Amino acid sequence: MRTNRRVVLAERPRYIIPTANCFELEKAPVPEPGEGELLVRTLWLGMEPYLLGKVKRASAEAEPVDIGQPMVGPGVGRVEVSRDANYQPGDLVYGLWAWQDYAVVHSSRTRKVPADLRRPSYHLGALGYSGFGAYIAVTDLGAAKAGETLVVGAATGGFGQIAGQLAKLKGCRTVGFAGGKEKCRLAMEQFGFDACIDHEARDLAEQLKRACPKGIDIYLETVGGAALDAVVPLFNVHGRMVVCGLMSLYATGVLPDGPDRTMLLLNQAIIKRLKISGLSSFDHLKRRYNEFKREMIGWIDSGQIKPMEYIVEGLENAPTALQNMFEGKNRGKTVVRVAD
Amino acid sequence: MRTNRRVVLAERPRYIIPTANCFELEKAPVPEPGEGELLVRTLWLGMEPYLLGKVKRASAEAEPVDIGQPMVGPGVGRVEVSRDANYQPGDLVYGLWAWQDYAVVHSSRTRKVPADLRRPSYHLGALGYSGFGAYIAVTDLGAAKAGETLVVGAATGGFGQIAGQLAKLKGCRTVGFAGGKEKCRLAMEQFGFDACIDHEARDLAEQLKRACPKGIDIYLETVGGAALDAVVPLFNVHGRMVVCGLMSLYATGVLPDGPDRTMLLLNQAIIKRLKISGLSSFDHLKRRYNEFKREMIGWIDSGQIKPMEYIVEGLENAPTALQNMFEGKNRGKTVVRVAD
Repeated sequence: MRTNRRVVLAERPRYIIPTANCFELEKAPVPEPGEGELLVRTLWLGMEPYLLGKVKRASAEAEPVDIGQPMVGPGVGRVEVSRDANYQPGDLVYGLWAWQDYAVVHSSRTRKVPADLRRPSYHLGALGYSGFGAYIAVTDLGAAKAGETLVVGAATGGFGQIAGQLAKLKGCRTVGFAGGKEKCRLAMEQFGFDACIDHEARDLAEQLKRACPKGIDIYLETVGGAALDAVVPLFNVHGRMVVCGLMSLYATGVLPDGPDRTMLLLNQAIIKRLKISGLSSFDHLKRRYNEFKREMIGWIDSGQIKPMEYIVEGLENAPTALQNMFEGKNRGKTVVRVAD
Repeated sequence: MRTNRRVVLAERPRYIIPTANCFELEKAPVPEPGEGELLVRTLWLGMEPYLLGKVKRASAEAEPVDIGQPMVGPGVGRVEVSRDANYQPGDLVYGLWAWQDYAVVHSSRTRKVPADLRRPSYHLGALGYSGFGAYIAVTDLGAAKAGETLVVGAATGGFGQIAGQLAKLKGCRTVGFAGGKEKCRLAMEQFGFDACIDHEARDLAEQLKRACPKGIDIYLETVGGAALDAVVPLFNVHGRMVVCGLMSLYATGVLPDGPDRTMLLLNQAIIKRLKISGLSSFDHLKRRYNEFKREMIGWIDSGQIKPMEYIVEGLENAPTALQNMFEGKNRGKTVVRVAD
C-alpha cells in the first residue's frame, strides 16, 4: 500500500501568523474516489494570505479547519483515478483540496489546467487567485488608464508583481512598496516598476511624493500602516483605492498607535471624491475569469508578463512556505513543489 | 442713498469652527450692476458645512475669503435691477453671493427659483445643496433599495432630514443618530426614522445593533467618531458607505484617540466587499439636477417629504446662524431671513 503523507493542523497560531509548528505531518492510507470523484496526485500547492482564515477564525464568515484535520488550500495535481467520464488519468487539474500527496476531489470542484499553459504551477499564481485578483483590481475596480499613476502596497508578492506588470501594460506609471533594498531593486528590474520604496525607510512619505509627481490615481492596498498614511494625502481627484489585503494587520494582529486616522482618509474621500472598494476575486469569477485566462495566457506567452515563483520543495515544507509568505521572505508567488 | 449692510470676515476662527466674533457688520454703498449683471435684494441665506472652507483653509483645493472681505454663501434674492434681457425686476433667483442686503451677481451665476415652489427658501435646503446631496447619496452612490437598512450620521440636520425621508420613500428601514433625546424624538416623529440613537449614549453600539436587526446596507457618514465605530462591524456584504461630511472632525479639529482604527474599516471593506464613496454634489449637478428638482418639488407638493427649516432672523445674525449649525443647535435646514 502506498502511503499518503498529509499536513494536519496541530494547533492554532500562538502568535498571529501561522508558524510552521502549528502543523504536523502524518501518514494515512491513500483515499478511494467515489462516483463522480477523482483521485489526484498533488503536484503543487499555492500559498495565499486568505489561508490565515483556515488556521484561525479571521472573520465571522470563514470557518477555520478543525484541529487534527488536514490543512486545505489551492493545489494543482494529476488525475490518477477518475470516476467521472469527463476526466482521464493524466489530466492536470486545479482545485482546493487537503495538503496531502493524494487527495480525493469531486470533479465538480476542479477545473482542468489548460494544456497550453507553460507551467502548471502558474495556475496557482498568475492564473490563480493572485493574478485574477490583480486583474480585477487593476482593470475593474481600479479602472487604470494610460498616463495614470498606480501604487501597490507590496510590489514583489504574488499579487503585486502581476498588478505592477498589468498596470505597466495599461500605460500607467507604477510605484511600489517593498521590504528592503533588494526587493525594491527586484520590483524595478524584474517587474518594471518605475519606482519602489522601502517600507522601512524613515522618509517613506517624502520618497513617495517624489516618486508620484502627478499624484496618485489608484492605490492597491495590500499592507496598511505607514504606506497607507503616506498615500492618503497624495490622492488625485476621482482617485480609486482597492483594498486587496492588509498584511501588516494580519502579520501583527495589532492596530497602529493613535490617533485614529480613519477620518483623514474619509476627509480625503470627500475632498477628492475617492472610490474605495474591497476586493473579493471570488465575486468576479463567473463574469470575468474566462476572459482573464485567455488574456493572461497571451501576455505570458508573448513575454509581456513574466510571473516569478518562489518555490519551496516538498510537502513537508508547506508549513514553512506559508510562514515565509506571511513574513515576506518570498519573491513572487509562493508555491510548494510536492511531486513532479 | 440706501445703505447696504454686509458681513465681512474679521478674523480666522480662533478655535476650530467659525464663531460669531469672526465676523463684523459694516455699511457700504449699494453696488451698481454692469452689463450682464443683476442687482439682487437678498431675501434668504443658507448655512452649509462647506462654508468652513470659506472662513479658513480647510483643504488645498478651496480658497478661503480674505480677511476684511465679505463672507460668501448661497442665497435667494429678488432682482431689483437687471442688465440681462432674460431677467426682470421681481424675478426670484438663487446663487452664491456675498452676505449683504444688496448684491451684484452675474446672471450666468444664478438660476431662477421655480415659480411653483412653495417657499423660495427651500431652494437653499431641500432643493439646494443639502437636498441634492441627500438625493445623490441615497439614490446614486448609496443605491438604496426597498427592504435595505440605511443609517444616517446626523438625522435632524439639513442633509439628514431629507436623506431619511427619501430612503423611507424608497422602502428602506431608516436609522439615524442625533445629539440628545429631543432631537431623536424629532427624527422619528417628524422625519419618519424607524429608530434614532443619541450620539452621547454610552451603549451607542448596542443600541445601533438592536436598531439594525438585519445589519446595515448603507451608511451616510456625516459625523465620524463613535457613530462610525459602531457602524463598521454591522455592514452587510456589498454594503455602501457614502462619506458626505465629518462634522465631528470639523467641530473639534482633532482626531479621536488611538489606536488607529483605519484598518478595521478597510478589513471590513475586504470581508464585506464594501464600496466607500466620497460625495461631492457639484460633480452631479449637470447630469442629475433637473430630474432631482422635478421629483423633489413633486414630493414636497404631495407632502411625501416635509422639509423643516431652522430660521434665524436678520442679516446681522448670519454669523450666529453659522455657529449654531456647527454646534448642532439647528433642527432641520439652517436659513437666515434677511428680508421679506
